[in-house]
Amino acid sequence: MFKRTDVCKSQVDSSAVNHQLPGLTYLYIARHLMFLDQKLLWIFLIASTGIHLNCRNFDQQDVAEVEHHKIEIIKKLGISNKDSLSTASTRALEMGYVAGPDWWTSFRMKDLKGDLTFEAGVTRRDPSAVIKVEETYYVYYTKSIGESHGFRTGDPNKKVFPWDLSEVWCASSNDGWNWKEIGLAVGRGEAGSYDDRAVFTPEVLYHQDKYYLVYQVVKAPYVNRVKNKVGMAIADKPTGPWKKLDAPILEPAENGVWLGEEDNRFKVSAKGDFDSHKVHDPCLMYYKNKFYLYYKGERMGEEHTLGGREIKWGVAISDRVEGPYRKSPFNPITNSGHEVCVWPYEGGIAAMLTSDGPENNTIQWAPDGINFEIKSHIGGRTKPPHAAGLVRSLDHKRSPLAALEWGLCFDRKEGWDYLKRFESYVSFAP
Amino acid sequence: MFKRTDVCKSQVDSSAVNHQLPGLTYLYIARHLMFLDQKLLWIFLIASTGIHLNCRNFDQQDVAEVEHHKIEIIKKLGISNKDSLSTASTRALEMGYVAGPDWWTSFRMKDLKGDLTFEAGVTRRDPSAVIKVEETYYVYYTKSIGESHGFRTGDPNKKVFPWDLSEVWCASSNDGWNWKEIGLAVGRGEAGSYDDRAVFTPEVLYHQDKYYLVYQVVKAPYVNRVKNKVGMAIADKPTGPWKKLDAPILEPAENGVWLGEEDNRFKVSAKGDFDSHKVHDPCLMYYKNKFYLYYKGERMGEEHTLGGREIKWGVAISDRVEGPYRKSPFNPITNSGHEVCVWPYEGGIAAMLTSDGPENNTIQWAPDGINFEIKSHIGGRTKPPHAAGLVRSLDHKRSPLAALEWGLCFDRKEGWDYLKRFESYVSFAP
Repeated sequence: MFKRTDVCKSQVDSSAVNHQLPGLTYLYIARHLMFLDQKLLWIFLIASTGIHLNCRNFDQQDVAEVEHHKIEIIKKLGISNKDSLSTASTRALEMGYVAGPDWWTSFRMKDLKGDLTFEAGVTRRDPSAVIKVEETYYVYYTKSIGESHGFRTGDPNKKVFPWDLSEVWCASSNDGWNWKEIGLAVGRGEAGSYDDRAVFTPEVLYHQDKYYLVYQVVKAPYVNRVKNKVGMAIADKPTGPWKKLDAPILEPAENGVWLGEEDNRFKVSAKGDFDSHKVHDPCLMYYKNKFYLYYKGERMGEEHTLGGREIKWGVAISDRVEGPYRKSPFNPITNSGHEVCVWPYEGGIAAMLTSDGPENNTIQWAPDGINFEIKSHIGGRTKPPHAAGLVRSLDHKRSPLAALEWGLCFDRKEGWDYLKRFESYVSFAP
Repeated sequence: MFKRTDVCKSQVDSSAVNHQLPGLTYLYIARHLMFLDQKLLWIFLIASTGIHLNCRNFDQQDVAEVEHHKIEIIKKLGISNKDSLSTASTRALEMGYVAGPDWWTSFRMKDLKGDLTFEAGVTRRDPSAVIKVEETYYVYYTKSIGESHGFRTGDPNKKVFPWDLSEVWCASSNDGWNWKEIGLAVGRGEAGSYDDRAVFTPEVLYHQDKYYLVYQVVKAPYVNRVKNKVGMAIADKPTGPWKKLDAPILEPAENGVWLGEEDNRFKVSAKGDFDSHKVHDPCLMYYKNKFYLYYKGERMGEEHTLGGREIKWGVAISDRVEGPYRKSPFNPITNSGHEVCVWPYEGGIAAMLTSDGPENNTIQWAPDGINFEIKSHIGGRTKPPHAAGLVRSLDHKRSPLAALEWGLCFDRKEGWDYLKRFESYVSFAP
């Protein structure tokens, strides 16, 4: 994984001539060395005899305090000998692995009751967040009927995926367990419109007396190389009626180039940005007086990397809820994850990243909604829920993961996706 | 997860008096800052105006080469804008997340045939490595009969766990699919001996015309606070007869202290080292002309950390196969993982860490068998096999994960553990 090329040629030698490099070059050299090998970085930084750091107030007392803190953590980690740390122990110290379960949890899945129980022949998946209006919970989800056949039938009208020929439906519940399917929320558009083939993976936002649904849209024909976009519909009540905007609010990056005419999404002459093929799984948040539209990117010519599928998230931001949405220059804002799952916490945005990428099955937090740091690893013994829809009325402030107390997700049985309830818990005594 | 205390007081200010700290203090300050916040570290190192690095040969051409390499990787990662990297993109660059599937894989589980198919009422689990002797494969595993009842029956003779009252059994196969159960390999010892209650989780090593089994042993009574040890048995043939050593070859650390008399493994006045309660899942490797006995540690007063259970591995080393084994001063050598699974690769030792700890579901590699670095994350969409027993006769040199091509593992059905076959594969086009 670490490529020991290029920079290794620049032999570090303290006996040599002094080159004064500009600050950014130091930063870049240091970073580059770091992703070659962290130990090499330290040797580079420490062994070079010319290092002079200007520190005010860094006296013996501070050093002693640091040392005491370090020894406490070493003890907590059960490390046998503080004077000979393995690389894994060093990483545990550096990354704060000693932390308790504040950010850690595992999950249980349970069957729902009423109309949202398993139903062979019907796909229900990708539940939105659950919103509570007066005493009633509402959820929106992808619904479609019948089997899917893939891309090779030769019949462009045949359903290719469980989420093809789908619509956004709505259900309500008084207790979070027993759900009544209210009916269609957002259907497909007329032939020729931007959403004439499928509308799916909805998310809901309540803001200033209005309800906003954001969701993926596909225009026919549904082929391998089709470019999914994101649409929006608005209502005054959670049960609709929903009025669609005239155009999608988010589109894939335009800097990928297909190779040849074959309908093959892996053949490209340029892959383009992380979201050059599809913008998926939108989730709209009102944050810092703006509207943050988080989404999952899928890339033209997708490959494997060391965490599996090459999936990352982006965010697009607008001052107005209906847009226009401008993609953040910091995109992608994750390097892993699948369905977008985010919630506000302590002035920032927390996120649960599942399934794909080297940081799959982690919980992360960004103080600014953009720069995400890993807070915990949650994939060990139980899998996190698929496409978790969080209950927005839970008291998010209580703890980092209070927003995950329960919610909806989906699972597959006998070839059919159906909605389930998830609950988070800490599973182990004491 | 990152604790912003202590060191933050030492305000870094380039305008202040120069303190010349010794090299190790620099290292320690740098490391400590690093596990507070990597960005803080860079600011500390770069913004301090007094940094002088002595570099020979680090000229404009090298800088240009580094810059070119960086841009190539940024392109590969699908990052939208090279001049505004999110924290996640920075991490992807630093950690080499762009790497391909050389170290990455996912898994399929399949049913075995013959005597090792599922059998209600019988526990078969924890398969050893699979060794090939002439044209026959052999595997050893934990076997026990009947239900387990936990610790609260009041009857000390009742089976508490599926691996209680267990023995080590052996099976053979000509094709790796169809297995014949040969029979008992290592049974429990006579009443009063160090292994009179249970022998389980075997591993096998063939070395210089002899066969070595290492396994866990429990002496009665099997209570919560019992201290598992590791035993060894030796044979001239893979089918035995097996001769046990007179005493265990590995024991838990002795620096934990139980609190009170209640049989509760969570009540301690001192937790001690990572392996203060139990030494589990031994795996013996002949490496660098010595014998490396890898094992999983369980700790008295075990708690949760941000990856779940507090489980880590250690290694004990001996010049002679029968011991005495001396625990490495670098223990623990992992900060995560469950059943030990290791194989030789490129002069070092590779490892698959499953289930527990913040680095669960990773593949790692240590050039010296001790200092493990993360090479890939494998837990996203498929779970790695439980207690994988690797096929030692596969050509390990072919690629990093050639040793994982297939092997045995176990799963649970209707409450009974049974052996399965696992296969590794890269699951996604192209």
